Amino acid sequence: MVEYQDILEAYERIKLIINKTPVMTSRTLNKLVNAEIYLKCENFQRIGAFKMRGAYNAISLLSQEQKKKGVIAHSSGNHAQAVALSAKLLGIKATIVMPETSQQVKINATKDTYGAEVVMCKNSLEARQKITQNLINKHGFTLIHPYDNDNVIAGAGTAAFELLNQIDGLNMIFAPVGGGGLLSGTLIATKGFNPYIKVYAVEPKNVDDAYRSMKSGKIETNKTINSIADGLLTTLSKRTFNIIHKNVEKIITVTEREILEAMRFIWERMKLVVEPSGANSLAGVLSRKISVENKKVGVIISGGNIDITDFFKLIENKIT
Amino acid sequence: MVEYQDILEAYERIKLIINKTPVMTSRTLNKLVNAEIYLKCENFQRIGAFKMRGAYNAISLLSQEQKKKGVIAHSSGNHAQAVALSAKLLGIKATIVMPETSQQVKINATKDTYGAEVVMCKNSLEARQKITQNLINKHGFTLIHPYDNDNVIAGAGTAAFELLNQIDGLNMIFAPVGGGGLLSGTLIATKGFNPYIKVYAVEPKNVDDAYRSMKSGKIETNKTINSIADGLLTTLSKRTFNIIHKNVEKIITVTEREILEAMRFIWERMKLVVEPSGANSLAGVLSRKISVENKKVGVIISGGNIDITDFFKLIENKIT
Repeated sequence: MVEYQDILEAYERIKLIINKTPVMTSRTLNKLVNAEIYLKCENFQRIGAFKMRGAYNAISLLSQEQKKKGVIAHSSGNHAQAVALSAKLLGIKATIVMPETSQQVKINATKDTYGAEVVMCKNSLEARQKITQNLINKHGFTLIHPYDNDNVIAGAGTAAFELLNQIDGLNMIFAPVGGGGLLSGTLIATKGFNPYIKVYAVEPKNVDDAYRSMKSGKIETNKTINSIADGLLTTLSKRTFNIIHKNVEKIITVTEREILEAMRFIWERMKLVVEPSGANSLAGVLSRKISVENKKVGVIISGGNIDITDFFKLIENKIT
Repeated sequence: MVEYQDILEAYERIKLIINKTPVMTSRTLNKLVNAEIYLKCENFQRIGAFKMRGAYNAISLLSQEQKKKGVIAHSSGNHAQAVALSAKLLGIKATIVMPETSQQVKINATKDTYGAEVVMCKNSLEARQKITQNLINKHGFTLIHPYDNDNVIAGAGTAAFELLNQIDGLNMIFAPVGGGGLLSGTLIATKGFNPYIKVYAVEPKNVDDAYRSMKSGKIETNKTINSIADGLLTTLSKRTFNIIHKNVEKIITVTEREILEAMRFIWERMKLVVEPSGANSLAGVLSRKISVENKKVGVIISGGNIDITDFFKLIENKIT
């Protein structure tokens, strides 16, 4: 079980490597919801998402033996890049199993920029897990799970810890929930810092397993995983379920349109590139399902990795 | 003639109203050009561009008589919004003459958000100037020119002044040039702060009147004004020509593709929404026409107002 002390230690371990991300505000936003809103901008984190915090913390803590053999992760997203870059910075070999449907730009970044070995596989969870297990059996790699790992959770919690130290007197924090790693870390950091600060989780309605899990008291799954918030499609693990069930104030859900509108607000009004999963928590604030009036509210913006190729094609057609 | 003292005074006048914009860096960028690059992010300025600095300074300095009668500007872009918001904050009536081709969203923002009166006109400089002059004759409005105005230039210069005080030991600054207001202010602020710091100007090749003006020693114009950097289509005035000719180290030009690539770098790698005119100065750095190696380089990112409607339509088509 992760404790507040683990987050403090994780922060000491990673603070010189990660970016201390800025907290951004908007007069327009504050006026809109009649509150003081503080966006913790993990889109400015290394690799463009909070995942760097957990990956670096977890890989740092491996034994010499484990470090010598190397690490492995299966992911098409931010976690893959976080594991690859963390391993590179620590001088450790990393292997990333990616579905063959991954964007070429992400495959290239993982290989070339972060120097990981990329193994392609069919686009199913089973295929990914099988290939990963085969590689572990063969080479003795250590799997870095994206959220079902105490050290990843402790690392993820440092984002909220940093925010709480940047902004005095927060009354509540909104965080996204997918597999529950970031939310678990946020809960432990926040409750350890000050148990009176309430933490609300925001989940896309289309993949509302965590919301239903809190209601039923057991881990629920999603029949379909169709959401633009592609970082939030996973379900809770027993580890994250337990932390969340015990500590979260409430989980609220948001529609795809609400996510899109929050994202557009952040791009247009605040000039920040955030991905749909990253805008999800602000969508929760803007949904008015929780009263934030006259409160100081922290909002974790989890990342900013979104494919803008199509947008730039539109502009490219205009140049001469 | 604007002097360094005017910039210091402008800053005292506006500093509690404007945003002190952050300076952003990127490990990837620094490695790419082997230098320390500091982006002065005026995309985070109020109304999304540096124009707020000059407009607020100029309108503050009007006489009581002028303030009572109100101000006018003709612009479809950032200057219009800057004049409208500055007037609103100062309790002054503003009239903005906008071409009928302006985006509805900009017309609405100028009217509704900033409370200005909007007068539509045909999309030609002559039509705009004529209607503006008629309104001035009729109502006694004071015209706030976007750059051919000493107080606007002094206000614009506070961006560089702020940057010079945020980052110690800059060796050079890159700024965009269109009508030359921002560049003139940047030159006076920088040379007043430390005459050894070199200021380079960057101009779209498609509208390279300032570049040619420096070569010929007189004000040149553009035959066509076809550039995605829509904030940089205007030509120098006598006022800005004189300041620039005397102080600028060099003006370099960049292609439309170079502007687009710099913009994409800033969006993708740095997670900042910037407009093409705002990315123009980084395009100059990335063009390698000026050696920046091992230097500390300030880069003025002038604004972030770009229409993202089409991109969000693409995403909207994906949601369910």
